[in-house]
Amino acid sequence: MPVLVVGSLGLDTLTTPFGQVKEVLGGTTSYFALAASMYTDVQVVAVVGTDFPEEYRRVLDGRRIDLQGIQVREGKTFRWSGEYRFDMNLAQTLDTQLNVFADFHPRLPEEYRSTRYVFLANIHPALQLEVVSQVHRPKLVVMDSMNFWIEHSKASLTEVMRRSDVVLLNDAEVRQFAETPNLISGARHILSLGPRAVVVKKGEHGALLVSKEDGVFVAPAYPQEEVRDPTGAGDSFAGGVIGYLASRDDVSPQAMRRAIIHGCAVASFTVEDFSVRRLERLSSSEVRERYTLFRNLTQFTDEELGVGISQPPTPKS
Amino acid sequence: MPVLVVGSLGLDTLTTPFGQVKEVLGGTTSYFALAASMYTDVQVVAVVGTDFPEEYRRVLDGRRIDLQGIQVREGKTFRWSGEYRFDMNLAQTLDTQLNVFADFHPRLPEEYRSTRYVFLANIHPALQLEVVSQVHRPKLVVMDSMNFWIEHSKASLTEVMRRSDVVLLNDAEVRQFAETPNLISGARHILSLGPRAVVVKKGEHGALLVSKEDGVFVAPAYPQEEVRDPTGAGDSFAGGVIGYLASRDDVSPQAMRRAIIHGCAVASFTVEDFSVRRLERLSSSEVRERYTLFRNLTQFTDEELGVGISQPPTPKS
Repeated sequence: MPVLVVGSLGLDTLTTPFGQVKEVLGGTTSYFALAASMYTDVQVVAVVGTDFPEEYRRVLDGRRIDLQGIQVREGKTFRWSGEYRFDMNLAQTLDTQLNVFADFHPRLPEEYRSTRYVFLANIHPALQLEVVSQVHRPKLVVMDSMNFWIEHSKASLTEVMRRSDVVLLNDAEVRQFAETPNLISGARHILSLGPRAVVVKKGEHGALLVSKEDGVFVAPAYPQEEVRDPTGAGDSFAGGVIGYLASRDDVSPQAMRRAIIHGCAVASFTVEDFSVRRLERLSSSEVRERYTLFRNLTQFTDEELGVGISQPPTPKS
Repeated sequence: MPVLVVGSLGLDTLTTPFGQVKEVLGGTTSYFALAASMYTDVQVVAVVGTDFPEEYRRVLDGRRIDLQGIQVREGKTFRWSGEYRFDMNLAQTLDTQLNVFADFHPRLPEEYRSTRYVFLANIHPALQLEVVSQVHRPKLVVMDSMNFWIEHSKASLTEVMRRSDVVLLNDAEVRQFAETPNLISGARHILSLGPRAVVVKKGEHGALLVSKEDGVFVAPAYPQEEVRDPTGAGDSFAGGVIGYLASRDDVSPQAMRRAIIHGCAVASFTVEDFSVRRLERLSSSEVRERYTLFRNLTQFTDEELGVGISQPPTPKS
């Protein structure tokens, strides 16, 4: 089954403790598409300006990525510039130039409208709703968002959540949206709005799946020693998750658990190099190996439970 | 096999968003001993003043906890006062009164000296070395510490690490000690000093075991919705870990993994109520249940790996 993604496509200028890159391929859809295309066919809806480099189009083209949904508009492509300091957990935005992205309205090619797996990447909630109104009977709608929309467009963001099956946010966003310091309570608040599941991205601490049918699943943090550029970790995580589910056409609780691990595995590669470079040269055997490594990270052998545990006697009084 | 713990015993005054308690039973050894006594016999070496309440002694007494190593000195018992704010992750110390603890020197009763499982709770590294010099041929020495000693007594702290089998620190302490933002690199730096394993406590994000023989093991965060008082989480975690290992007399990699889960399980109870109250009424069947719950948190079914992953074709050039 193919996957549809709607979001940004742009040029990033980045500084991390490991170097600097200028106007490299960025945007939510490029990371998502490259990750999901490891698993299934991907349809991209986004907008670029006439200055969008042909070489970046070629990075996406030629894989299992359909680019007919990419609008080309007279003007400049969306540009983002950011910096990561010592702890690498949070990007400082230095500059954002919306350019042609400012007037973007997603228009789905006719054949995309019946696609059953849909990812609403982080864009204005009103645009996410425009996408939802264009798709026919999707099986799984997954949405992402960010602190800015929680602060400025909470009502329409809440409406997107109501119409989604899975809400994907980072831990700070869950706390902010639900107005509670407790992640699990925050996730349950979001579930109460309608979605079947909430996926909490915790950066270096892994991910959490909280679902109505299956309770809580914890995906371990990958013991990452090589982080050069965290940009795109969340979107390639989403690409791994939804790409896997679509490839199997299975949204059962067990498939969701495996999908989260696939997402973690793919994202753990993304951050090893700048921009989409690591995804470009990622092989399926590498993903398989890392998936197995994830299993070993959390495995412990069974033994007769309770051996060695003694009931304490009632304290003397 | 019994476990020996050396550390503080005192009276805590605490404020959290859920209430306030005054001069309740606290100190590293009380949390550790109550947790470890769920699994095995515990020997405590600590000091209290003549004002130490008899009712607190009775909380420890009558369980599998030997109190003959507790020195009673003329004067007041160690007191600590702290506050947890909204996010509950970090205690603000409001007041510390060392009192009789200021002149504490651990003196092990003769029969404790051959105890093979030893926990050096967080005290001055010089005192931890005094303990190490008093024990004969221990099988497992585990040490804890804190930011203050990393800052002010790094040389003697490093010496304690060299003489320990397992180093137990929280994530911030590992980063501070190893002077790197990367936890895994930090843990490997500590391994290079001599210990077999480093256990990184990550609070609400679970724990990490990095060992020479077994690589990395990730223990999931318990999806905790009820946190009333985080005090003692780390020491009861240590009690669960070492208590379990001693009860089985097994320090193999697989036993270490199970022990970490036991530690997480016990600590997840500790924080549900103030002081040691939840540990006081903890039953072995509750620990067993939560251990099983931890397994379910990270479990995902096998399937033929690689299904759905396709090797991307070489991009067109």
